Amino acid sequence: MSLDQFQSEPDWLDASGPEASIILSSRIRLARNLRDHPFSHRASPDQKAEIYEIVREAAREAPSLVSPNFVRMDRISALDRQILLERRLISPDLAKGSGPRGVAVGKGESLSVLIIEEDHMRIQGVFSGFELMEAWRTVDRLDEELSQKIDIAFSPEWGFLTACPTNTGTGLRASVLIHLPALALTKQISKVLRGISQVGLAVRGLFGEGSEAMGNFYQISNQTTLGLSETEVIDNLTRVTRQVIDHEKSASDVLLKSARLQVEDKVYRAYGILKHCRVISSQEVISLVSALRFGHSLGLCDRMSAHQLNRLMLSTLPGHVQRDAGSKLDQEERDYRRALMVRSLLRSGGCDDPPPTSSA
Amino acid sequence: MSLDQFQSEPDWLDASGPEASIILSSRIRLARNLRDHPFSHRASPDQKAEIYEIVREAAREAPSLVSPNFVRMDRISALDRQILLERRLISPDLAKGSGPRGVAVGKGESLSVLIIEEDHMRIQGVFSGFELMEAWRTVDRLDEELSQKIDIAFSPEWGFLTACPTNTGTGLRASVLIHLPALALTKQISKVLRGISQVGLAVRGLFGEGSEAMGNFYQISNQTTLGLSETEVIDNLTRVTRQVIDHEKSASDVLLKSARLQVEDKVYRAYGILKHCRVISSQEVISLVSALRFGHSLGLCDRMSAHQLNRLMLSTLPGHVQRDAGSKLDQEERDYRRALMVRSLLRSGGCDDPPPTSSA
Repeated sequence: MSLDQFQSEPDWLDASGPEASIILSSRIRLARNLRDHPFSHRASPDQKAEIYEIVREAAREAPSLVSPNFVRMDRISALDRQILLERRLISPDLAKGSGPRGVAVGKGESLSVLIIEEDHMRIQGVFSGFELMEAWRTVDRLDEELSQKIDIAFSPEWGFLTACPTNTGTGLRASVLIHLPALALTKQISKVLRGISQVGLAVRGLFGEGSEAMGNFYQISNQTTLGLSETEVIDNLTRVTRQVIDHEKSASDVLLKSARLQVEDKVYRAYGILKHCRVISSQEVISLVSALRFGHSLGLCDRMSAHQLNRLMLSTLPGHVQRDAGSKLDQEERDYRRALMVRSLLRSGGCDDPPPTSSA
Repeated sequence: MSLDQFQSEPDWLDASGPEASIILSSRIRLARNLRDHPFSHRASPDQKAEIYEIVREAAREAPSLVSPNFVRMDRISALDRQILLERRLISPDLAKGSGPRGVAVGKGESLSVLIIEEDHMRIQGVFSGFELMEAWRTVDRLDEELSQKIDIAFSPEWGFLTACPTNTGTGLRASVLIHLPALALTKQISKVLRGISQVGLAVRGLFGEGSEAMGNFYQISNQTTLGLSETEVIDNLTRVTRQVIDHEKSASDVLLKSARLQVEDKVYRAYGILKHCRVISSQEVISLVSALRFGHSLGLCDRMSAHQLNRLMLSTLPGHVQRDAGSKLDQEERDYRRALMVRSLLRSGGCDDPPPTSSA
């Protein structure tokens, strides 16, 4: 089994949707379990295999998934698992688990169903831009389709039952991946992040815990699944995110007025380094893409689209670099090959450096 | 009085002469004083004016200077004095002094005579590349020409008499401006510099004391003026410099074999930053030009010549940036304008970025 059947990039990279210059993507995830089957961590390999087949049958026929691709984690290489992780199609838990488990991936990778993760099913939808409600409607429809084939563990008192009580109730986790360079440059980011935590939302870095501040990308998500309806959770996250977007835009305006040249310098230096580097780490690519994204959102550098910048970031992650090379590479080889890829991607969609003028 | 009559750049920038990729320039300076006149620091303004006129008359007719330009320090702006300093035509002492004093500048700025510095005359010659002997012959000829018109203070016992006893004897200071990036990258530079000091030579940074390590440029010069003939001093400096050049070349070979990609990365990143920066300090330009110079000397980046790199470095020094602007500028304005100049200079003589290939 390989990932050949996957398209070159997920649909959610295309920087469409509202506020796509600040919100990379909106994600909805539902935790669901089969009634009368032990939770994943208590299931034997045979029981897991049975659960896998039940979910697989239901997913195969779900119209929303449009003939999904199924990938069994225990039948692909570690590199392929890494690629699925980088594409956010699976979770670290699913990658690391044992026994029968996998993922059903819908067309364009917007919808997927993780099978036998912490819960039997994690139904998820990822959409470009600020599209929480649309993501919710799409995931909700897929949940309905699957529920018609599968008997789901549900209690009238507690709602959906989950392996971990923190997901019980709606089983819903909604999140946005947000880019906050102006708040970082104006040193307001800690205050804003603290404010988000205080209203009961969680903030993580681009790659979860421990990756805070990488490229000024953050994931904001709800923590509460019990006592609120799905739309209340989503409305709440939407309202707070809207406020953060407004803060970010105000900080951008301030920077454009007070330090336009310095920001422009930062943006173009990032471009110059990406365009000419001979070795580069993926962390540095993310940090430089962050600068270019900011330049793009301010209208300082518009030849490279947000879509191209998203592609640059995903396609140069370690797993994807090795996929492009067609083989496992050590870190030095990756850094060399990544630099080649970056230069090639910038060549095909570079932001032009306008001729210098004498006006300040 | 202005500097309009000066050509756009000194001849010694042209990177001609032996070993020009490592030795930027070779310089010879002779300290001379008029007999029966008080040394500069003891002379009254009237006496200085008299000395100035005697030297000026002699210099005007010296064939080697080819109708020199005369610049009186007390009649030009601080900015013009800074420009002359950056072109190495005058010394900080001459710039800072008071009363009648100045410089006679020969064609191409190779030869000049500082008038009423610490000594009445500092006859100097600057040549591109490793040309100490040629510089000596040229300066010696000018010294002869001036001595035919001026009665020079000379003692059969001590040699040429000078205001400071450290110059007495030959009055000769010979120096080379050398670029040692490979020794710096391989961390051998301190050892080599220590060795140079131990054989009685002095090592200074690009702009004298305190500018050590700036761009890995160093000035090596003799300290002894008494007890050795001029050619012995020059032979000694030549021999040691030749050894340092050999060390630098060995270190370059090692780097090319062991870390070619990392060096190439450093070189091209420097190029990328110079080509795209929007604000930049002259110190950063020097450091980036140092990387490009190294890339050029290793054959990693050959579209930008050593001559163009020398020009880039001189023309973006603070005084020259303001000369280009036609007005005094504060630091922020200089950094902005410098970035414009750098981008424009690279556009007119950029080193091409070859298309990426898949071979390592």
